[in-house]
Amino acid sequence: MIDRNRRGLVLAAGGVLAAGAVGDMAWAAPPDRKLGYAIVGLGSYGLGIIAPQFKNCKNSKLVALVSGDAAKAKRVAQEYGVPEKNLYNYQNYDEIRNNPDIDIVYVCLPVSMHAEYTIRAAKAGKHVLCEKPMAVSSAECESMIAACRQAGKKLMIGYRCHFEPYNLEARRIARAGEIGKLRYFRSEHGFHFRDPNAWRLKKALAGGGSMMDIGIYALNAARYMTGEEPTAVYAQETTDRKDPRFREVEDMIGFQLEFPSGVIGSCQSMYSANQNHILLVGDKGRVEMEPATGYQGNRMWVGGNGRDKEVTPPPGPGATQWAGQLDHMAQCVLQDREPIVGGQEGLRDLRIIEAIYQSAREQKRIVLKA
Amino acid sequence: MIDRNRRGLVLAAGGVLAAGAVGDMAWAAPPDRKLGYAIVGLGSYGLGIIAPQFKNCKNSKLVALVSGDAAKAKRVAQEYGVPEKNLYNYQNYDEIRNNPDIDIVYVCLPVSMHAEYTIRAAKAGKHVLCEKPMAVSSAECESMIAACRQAGKKLMIGYRCHFEPYNLEARRIARAGEIGKLRYFRSEHGFHFRDPNAWRLKKALAGGGSMMDIGIYALNAARYMTGEEPTAVYAQETTDRKDPRFREVEDMIGFQLEFPSGVIGSCQSMYSANQNHILLVGDKGRVEMEPATGYQGNRMWVGGNGRDKEVTPPPGPGATQWAGQLDHMAQCVLQDREPIVGGQEGLRDLRIIEAIYQSAREQKRIVLKA
Repeated sequence: MIDRNRRGLVLAAGGVLAAGAVGDMAWAAPPDRKLGYAIVGLGSYGLGIIAPQFKNCKNSKLVALVSGDAAKAKRVAQEYGVPEKNLYNYQNYDEIRNNPDIDIVYVCLPVSMHAEYTIRAAKAGKHVLCEKPMAVSSAECESMIAACRQAGKKLMIGYRCHFEPYNLEARRIARAGEIGKLRYFRSEHGFHFRDPNAWRLKKALAGGGSMMDIGIYALNAARYMTGEEPTAVYAQETTDRKDPRFREVEDMIGFQLEFPSGVIGSCQSMYSANQNHILLVGDKGRVEMEPATGYQGNRMWVGGNGRDKEVTPPPGPGATQWAGQLDHMAQCVLQDREPIVGGQEGLRDLRIIEAIYQSAREQKRIVLKA
Repeated sequence: MIDRNRRGLVLAAGGVLAAGAVGDMAWAAPPDRKLGYAIVGLGSYGLGIIAPQFKNCKNSKLVALVSGDAAKAKRVAQEYGVPEKNLYNYQNYDEIRNNPDIDIVYVCLPVSMHAEYTIRAAKAGKHVLCEKPMAVSSAECESMIAACRQAGKKLMIGYRCHFEPYNLEARRIARAGEIGKLRYFRSEHGFHFRDPNAWRLKKALAGGGSMMDIGIYALNAARYMTGEEPTAVYAQETTDRKDPRFREVEDMIGFQLEFPSGVIGSCQSMYSANQNHILLVGDKGRVEMEPATGYQGNRMWVGGNGRDKEVTPPPGPGATQWAGQLDHMAQCVLQDREPIVGGQEGLRDLRIIEAIYQSAREQKRIVLKA
């Protein structure tokens, strides 16, 4: 386990690095130094997507599991070489404080449990990587940030696209002015939600519907592609409440973002149709991505005339977007840096999502507080 | 010149056709019977696009020109074999009433002149095909409709895409349920407006900016693709008023449409970036078009997975979209039918555009009157 304070002292003793310079050490981390992760929640994402990724990492290893299903945990532990002593359940979770193998906890639980399991991890002295959306409300986000700050622990949100080569290259192109002055950002994100019994369709567990789960990709992309924060939103919702899937949460929500520079952001979130698309229109050209934020198979076109020119981006920071994400968190801990997608990033999205829901409910434009 | 009343009597005398059945005669018109058109306004559209199209027509011929530039009119007349006696200017325009060669007037003037030249044509006993947007205001549209009704003359608006094979096929697919239940319509229409001195950038002549000129394609497509009329709109405008092109009219306007079935329409209009795109998303697939409403080179993809399957539509009603449009109007006159894009179609768009401008100005959702 890395002690942030001790690390800080070591650096200070070196007498070379100013606080602001620490960030530049990003890639100076010993490549063979691996921090230990505990995955909390062995659902489709934690088990299906995250667990297999540690083999692609330089600074991260899977050392512990937290699950309500002891048999499943044991089976997964065997598969990934996790020692049985490092298996926890939701009752004895706080005992991770006594386990020096665990540096970072990765919270892969239903959204309504993010706050509790992040705060308990921080209190147990562990750094936290928490899946998006950060929590069911901005108030919960604030308490998560406060708990980690108080414990002196890092908090990062699982915005994997910030480590995904296509998204990084599109952002670079947009911000470098290569398509001229940015005028318009548009994104649709949606898929067919099939299982009416899934936790993501329960308001109490998910906090909301497609907006919280998949629409957040469009919202977050609008912010990282433009480099701006929206000042106002307008949203309209269409949900068939007779559809058994949508008794509690929204299906389709369109939201419009106003940015200070005048860029218009226009986004769509859906649980009843497949769409995964980002378009950036500048006055000298455009960047189009489809699929834009997929697990794999993303594609990108850059130029002035439709999809004439397909572009393959340079490699991202990790072997995969998840490896980049896991190692970034580990490196932030090793080097006492703030993650590029910390708690504030998650909080900002949640505040905007709350305004989007309010706008759809009240059918009016909502001005966002600075 | 076809006398609508006389034609009506002939049909009645036949004693076979009920009023409702007249429309079924659409393609029974004698293919060698051609009605005479007068083009009013020899600008880039009237001269560059419409005049060359008569050679592709079955029921339409160019017989007269109306222009403020006598030398230009004479030159064009020679090119197209228009007799010199059929050349008019804006002063002696009303004398077309005495010219039996002219059945239909095609108004290709700046938007602010549409109402006057449509009404004068109707009063001169001529049918009118008028370019879109129909007029600078819904009030003007209403007076154009009234004038044509009073004179017993047909009025059609130049919505060429209703005769364009890709748009017709996309509409058929959408309305036939081939992509399932329609969820979402999106369209961007925009181009770089270069010349700061063009009449389209003068509020008094154009009535508005990109919305009136190019955004109307997205609006009209949202209506004809879905087959629904919007019940409410929300719009946001971004215009750099320091840009010499945009001192009087808007550059970029995004508008959201609510449809009775729950379909969300999301559109964007721009004078500062190139984009020509339509996307229809259903719960079983999608139709994508890009370019969607071009003069030529339109493309379309249909299916469930991005642009996997490109589709070539069956031929449209005419050799070109303009020939289909010109001949449709001629056939409507020959058979005493109402054009599929009559004055009411233009009026509906103008009412929605007025609500869009109001929404952008007041930054609030505007409910449309039924």
